[in-house]
Amino acid sequence: MPVVNVEEKLGKFSEHWAPKIVAAFNGHDVMVVKLLGEFIWHSHPDTDDFFLVLKGKLTIELRDGAVHLGPGELYVVPKGVEHRPVAKEEVHLLLIEPAGTPNTGDKATAAEKRPI
Amino acid sequence: MPVVNVEEKLGKFSEHWAPKIVAAFNGHDVMVVKLLGEFIWHSHPDTDDFFLVLKGKLTIELRDGAVHLGPGELYVVPKGVEHRPVAKEEVHLLLIEPAGTPNTGDKATAAEKRPI
Repeated sequence: MPVVNVEEKLGKFSEHWAPKIVAAFNGHDVMVVKLLGEFIWHSHPDTDDFFLVLKGKLTIELRDGAVHLGPGELYVVPKGVEHRPVAKEEVHLLLIEPAGTPNTGDKATAAEKRPI
Repeated sequence: MPVVNVEEKLGKFSEHWAPKIVAAFNGHDVMVVKLLGEFIWHSHPDTDDFFLVLKGKLTIELRDGAVHLGPGELYVVPKGVEHRPVAKEEVHLLLIEPAGTPNTGDKATAAEKRPI
């Protein structure tokens, strides 16, 4: 595989909430994504959800509170835990999820994840 | 789990080649590590090896060449592929491996990985 420059990959697209696959790792997709606004409440019953913020400030709302992440901060939402990402300004993220994991727990959205 | 600030974790230790566990993700350890000098040739027969460079320049020598990574660049060494990390200057890395994966393919070294 080639070396992946994360910023270079992020420069190739502008749409929000559409993860782009940049590498494969142990059956997982390594992805970059841009966020802006509020996502929907969802959970992943079979997988933890790995977030590493590269740019901007991300709030991950949880049913019992919220966590706040800035650049260079990471958080893992445990499987089955309902959460809602909220980005009041544009956020750039590195995400890791098992290949084929839907964005929202809805399998119809898994197709949104594309290599770049 | 708490939010993990990667730089804050890296500021807590100075030794090289001793990964520190900062989070758990789908049976994997998410780790930070500082490198300086040459590691040994090794491979991991059962797992890919995820490298994200946070600081410095890392060379990963492969039997058929080498890859060069700077800050914000990631690379996945496929399972079974022999490699040797070389850091001519200090490198800070984010690593992800299945929990318990030895550093070198030698189970005796797995114990080097400690939470921080």
